[in-house]
Amino acid sequence: MSSHSVSGYSFAAPFQIPAPSPIRSLAPYANRPGTISMAGGYPATELFDVDGLNAAAAKVGGRLASCLQYSNIDGQAGLRMQLARLSAERGIRCDPDTELAVTGGSQQSLALLGRVLLQPGDAAIIESPGFPNSRQALHYTGATLHTAPSGPDGVDVDALALLVERVRPKLVSVVATFSNPCGATLNLERRRRLVELAARYRFLLVEDDPYGELRFEGEPIPPLLALAEGEQRKWVAYIASMSKTMAPALRMGWLIAPDEIRRRCVSAKAADDMASSAWIQEIVAQYIEDGRYHEHVPRIRAAYAARADALARALAEEMGSQVDFRKPQGGMFCWARLTGDIDSTRLLPYAIEHEVVYVPGKAFYGDPAQADLQAMRLSFATMNEAQIRTGIVRLRQALQACAAGEPTTITVPT
Amino acid sequence: MSSHSVSGYSFAAPFQIPAPSPIRSLAPYANRPGTISMAGGYPATELFDVDGLNAAAAKVGGRLASCLQYSNIDGQAGLRMQLARLSAERGIRCDPDTELAVTGGSQQSLALLGRVLLQPGDAAIIESPGFPNSRQALHYTGATLHTAPSGPDGVDVDALALLVERVRPKLVSVVATFSNPCGATLNLERRRRLVELAARYRFLLVEDDPYGELRFEGEPIPPLLALAEGEQRKWVAYIASMSKTMAPALRMGWLIAPDEIRRRCVSAKAADDMASSAWIQEIVAQYIEDGRYHEHVPRIRAAYAARADALARALAEEMGSQVDFRKPQGGMFCWARLTGDIDSTRLLPYAIEHEVVYVPGKAFYGDPAQADLQAMRLSFATMNEAQIRTGIVRLRQALQACAAGEPTTITVPT
Repeated sequence: MSSHSVSGYSFAAPFQIPAPSPIRSLAPYANRPGTISMAGGYPATELFDVDGLNAAAAKVGGRLASCLQYSNIDGQAGLRMQLARLSAERGIRCDPDTELAVTGGSQQSLALLGRVLLQPGDAAIIESPGFPNSRQALHYTGATLHTAPSGPDGVDVDALALLVERVRPKLVSVVATFSNPCGATLNLERRRRLVELAARYRFLLVEDDPYGELRFEGEPIPPLLALAEGEQRKWVAYIASMSKTMAPALRMGWLIAPDEIRRRCVSAKAADDMASSAWIQEIVAQYIEDGRYHEHVPRIRAAYAARADALARALAEEMGSQVDFRKPQGGMFCWARLTGDIDSTRLLPYAIEHEVVYVPGKAFYGDPAQADLQAMRLSFATMNEAQIRTGIVRLRQALQACAAGEPTTITVPT
Repeated sequence: MSSHSVSGYSFAAPFQIPAPSPIRSLAPYANRPGTISMAGGYPATELFDVDGLNAAAAKVGGRLASCLQYSNIDGQAGLRMQLARLSAERGIRCDPDTELAVTGGSQQSLALLGRVLLQPGDAAIIESPGFPNSRQALHYTGATLHTAPSGPDGVDVDALALLVERVRPKLVSVVATFSNPCGATLNLERRRRLVELAARYRFLLVEDDPYGELRFEGEPIPPLLALAEGEQRKWVAYIASMSKTMAPALRMGWLIAPDEIRRRCVSAKAADDMASSAWIQEIVAQYIEDGRYHEHVPRIRAAYAARADALARALAEEMGSQVDFRKPQGGMFCWARLTGDIDSTRLLPYAIEHEVVYVPGKAFYGDPAQADLQAMRLSFATMNEAQIRTGIVRLRQALQACAAGEPTTITVPT
């Protein structure tokens, strides 16, 4: 079944060739003092509600003895209730005892759903461009991954429908709101068609929604599960996370799925890690119960709105027709395209030399041949408005240097 | 590849038939007020060092802003250093940067090692009887699991050697010290032979060591990895956990494995859950650094020593020749065998009626046909000495009632 590596080990197929992360390989440059990084997928550190989290933790500390033991695999009952309420605010009704489970984040939710449904010989569909770690979670199931083209309007549902007809997937995963990397949001019509497709072809349609609450402009559009009616509900799952609204280090997320699927995800989680930390779960539940969550999210929204605005203005004013982009209405990312004959991979070493870093679009495609080489992902979440302006000025200068054929000493692994 | 369930879903092979847990099905009885439960695999709740953990958490609270962001997949550098030191005290030298990774507990460590090595068509070997969740973690890889007979002296290395020769496993997992359920400890000679076997047949020998530090009698025997020399080190991994020494709800463990394997486990963890909570990691590191860990473990040892002693005396004095057992030298479990013609499954409803619960030995065998039906696992960790005596008195009365053919109204799912 598997070949031996040089060292003599015989790894499972997906692990035979270790996959380097093109995004992580940028970290040494992004972390240089003085460099302005628009490369990270991180939320803003300075916006973390340290006081609120410490206050919740202090309350939980007073009852710590009661949350140190082994606990329910599917999560603390109080937290499940709070998460069901949050989901209801987004338009999703669910039974917190039979349809919702606490997980270690969206990543784990997707990994669990993939694990219970997919095996070698099965097909699954993801968006391209898309978040590499989501692809990785499904790749490790051994299933064959196909990609549906996506872009500034989200996944192309016509192309997806043809692909579904051809490969008969068991799972299709999308980010419907403020996607990573495109910052795209699917309109209501595309959402309805996706849900219909799922029910008709009987695949599980998974909506990963880490960014939905970070809308600072326009009207919210209901999540896919909120649009599913009757039998359609059997074919739609919703996964979400506290990483962008509270903090990534909580490692806290949830999934909502039909009972039969959820139950198996809980069995898979038992074998994977027994449960998520009840201590952290209690802190998160306390934080929401204290009203801190609903106070805090608007603060993030306001800050990101100002940053998105600063980015859009800087791009327009500094780079003009040299880039094409759409102003984000939420989330953390702007997908910008260079309009000239220099692509974003060629530009990158110059950008690094000019102390600004982004992620070339290529990093978000499983198949480099399909990649939009002109595109780049710019995160506006972690830099303040002045830094964003400076970053874009530097980007313009880098583009000039590159166009002028100046030499560069930087070599970026791609 | 897979068949459709009644509901229309087509699950991956290991999830087609949901596996009920025979241990979890006892929980409703074990949790009845007034019932004395020796069934749980839980550490003693009243021994948790709530003050020490709160003190560590308060210190980390002062620097919380620095540990809320996304973090290294392989763990916080400070915690890796502390865990390498703990491992060194157990006789294992390792490089905390290339050989050690923080995980969400022993369960996740084993799941990760299994995932990177095993796929359908591969073979792995586990002990029988053994911990069902360990079996489950490896089962979900799709590999074929074989069992090597184990017992009060640990795994039978002769039988294992024959099995290895026949099935050529890629992974063999054992608990070498105070095993679950047998409370067994492998002697030095068996350990050396295991390590030699691993190097000779080139399988990864995984030692799961959640209980090793809970020795209250006799001399410690070095872990398998401490016995591996030169090239042998390539074939031995060590996994351990804070669940029994600090608290299960931390969901904190670690693995030590050769760099090539560890690196792939870290990739697998990235796809599974991105990382363990940096917040909790910092609390654990602070707790160890403050010396609390080394103060606390002896308290657990002393309490468990007294409880093991109480259990051994109660069994001898109350049940005499009706049970066979070996007095535990550490850990949390005593493996006792009924010597008469009543087996532990038949006895269980009577025990429940007499308000005492244990886990029938059968629950720890993958293949019921191999099960030692006379055996039962008695946990001495969670009950005080008086409760233990009462529990064993009740067990004797249950045995009498069962032998007398009295009716019982209890039906336990098996």
